Amino acid sequence: MEIEFLGTGAGSPGKFRNVSSTALRLLDERNSVWLFDVGEATQHQILRTTLKPRKIDKIFITHLHGDHIFGLPGLLSSRSFQGGNSALTIYGPKGIRDFVEVSMRVSETKLSYKIHYQEIAADGLVFEDDKFQVYAQHLDHKIECFGYRVVEKDHPGELQVDKLREAKIPSGPVYGKLKLGETVTLPDGRTINGQDFLGPAQPGRIVALLGDTRQTKNAERLAKDADVLVHESTFAKGESKLARSYYHSTNIQAAELAKRMHVKMLLLNHISARYTGKMAQDLQHQAREIFHNTRVVKDFDEVDVPFQKLTTKGDEQ
Amino acid sequence: MEIEFLGTGAGSPGKFRNVSSTALRLLDERNSVWLFDVGEATQHQILRTTLKPRKIDKIFITHLHGDHIFGLPGLLSSRSFQGGNSALTIYGPKGIRDFVEVSMRVSETKLSYKIHYQEIAADGLVFEDDKFQVYAQHLDHKIECFGYRVVEKDHPGELQVDKLREAKIPSGPVYGKLKLGETVTLPDGRTINGQDFLGPAQPGRIVALLGDTRQTKNAERLAKDADVLVHESTFAKGESKLARSYYHSTNIQAAELAKRMHVKMLLLNHISARYTGKMAQDLQHQAREIFHNTRVVKDFDEVDVPFQKLTTKGDEQ
Ligand SMILES: [Zn+2]
Ligand SMILES: [Zn+2]
Repeated sequence: MEIEFLGTGAGSPGKFRNVSSTALRLLDERNSVWLFDVGEATQHQILRTTLKPRKIDKIFITHLHGDHIFGLPGLLSSRSFQGGNSALTIYGPKGIRDFVEVSMRVSETKLSYKIHYQEIAADGLVFEDDKFQVYAQHLDHKIECFGYRVVEKDHPGELQVDKLREAKIPSGPVYGKLKLGETVTLPDGRTINGQDFLGPAQPGRIVALLGDTRQTKNAERLAKDADVLVHESTFAKGESKLARSYYHSTNIQAAELAKRMHVKMLLLNHISARYTGKMAQDLQHQAREIFHNTRVVKDFDEVDVPFQKLTTKGDEQ
Repeated sequence: MEIEFLGTGAGSPGKFRNVSSTALRLLDERNSVWLFDVGEATQHQILRTTLKPRKIDKIFITHLHGDHIFGLPGLLSSRSFQGGNSALTIYGPKGIRDFVEVSMRVSETKLSYKIHYQEIAADGLVFEDDKFQVYAQHLDHKIECFGYRVVEKDHPGELQVDKLREAKIPSGPVYGKLKLGETVTLPDGRTINGQDFLGPAQPGRIVALLGDTRQTKNAERLAKDADVLVHESTFAKGESKLARSYYHSTNIQAAELAKRMHVKMLLLNHISARYTGKMAQDLQHQAREIFHNTRVVKDFDEVDVPFQKLTTKGDEQ
């Protein structure tokens, strides 16, 4: 699971940062990629990465401002042109379907795959399968805007084969049942509970990707205990009034949120063209004074989302 | 008057050519720029040129395929964001207004200027002022498609001041009238016809910019005697059947058209990603065997549209 930033700028494309798009790479987990927002020229950015449009099976839109959606018709068309034929689901505020459908109709584009639309009406769970849950919550922007919280389900503990051998439990199909934590009866009459032979479960990871927003209680719900929080930073330290009047946040507000909600890593994006070079570094320095594990990301940055280290007995040093 | 190519590729953006957009720079003539088609990321291409979005006062759309229009909402938004406040007119097939208006409505974009839409119903003159005429003609593509012919009006000849002095006509306000070709009576009683003191008129230039098309009679009408013909070249020599079945043209067909219609310069664009590097050169070589003054253009190429040399007596050598 990695986060690859395709556009980390705010408002309009600049020479150094494109408009918003973030890819959540889930190639190991489910052989797919999820996109969060699709600003204009996201498909051009993708051309410069190893991402394959046909692997994108979910697109989550935070809000309908142009810098977050105007790349969607082109990306969908190219995904079709490049042979993508598996269905794709688009999640987002009401209106996203109208925008895509009018674009496809006017341009007489016939896609080679089906699009499912899930226009979000209320906060809560928007997707779940055996490995992941995704929650959406309203944020506080000038236009309806959502943040998303991607929750990976826990990975069950590994079967402790050495311990089984020690207990003289012969290998065979029975190991498969024990691995699932089931209780089995051996040919010799012993009853064995698989739970006793499983290592600790590996907690799943949590990634919170927020759209443009002022500070709001829902951001806390989305960010709580996240392994990675991706948060906008349109304004800098000392500009909280300005941020509020434009329905945005400062780097300091993002860092305070990360600290308060016990986030493990904070990635700041949606960086205004006013902050170039050293000034973007300043954004990072300011935020780190409050929350150390903070990074201002750039286009094409790729950040691994690590599992939390398991501390089992004997593992502690 | 120069033509600046912003996107010379076909269908989808590639690493070397963006999707379609061509700028006609009329800075000397009317301090403005006209765009022909606006594929996705045209505004990103413009960032790499000296073009100013606020100077774009007319956009001509050839057809509504995505690779020709998906950059329009973003360009219009950025033109507003960058302080453009003068009205802009969009010419194109029926449907272009719907696409732009839905994009602006869904994204809640409030532009700082007014857009006039001129959806073209019939072939003929679509714009005229004191310096230019623009004609549109239907082409033969899979979707309704237009080609445009930009006709600059002739520049009147210059007043021959030396000749006036020789005739002992004293300078003064009378020169202004003579310059307009009027007849005046001098204080000494002589009657002077301004036409006798004007150099040869400078014929205006003609630029034909065609959209995607099969060979069709209307292409001839658009191209006739043009100083520059910009023509698609999606296919190569020997692929005319393929071109026909995809509603496109070959480089050879474009060159034959240029020759037949006494064009002065042929610029080939809409080059498929199948033709890279040397192969694009081959497209040019093949076409030149038929029409010598041919060039396969690349993104960011800028081509001057020269006036035709006037041959007056004594000017010939
Ligand atoms: Zn934004
Ligand atoms: Zn095309």
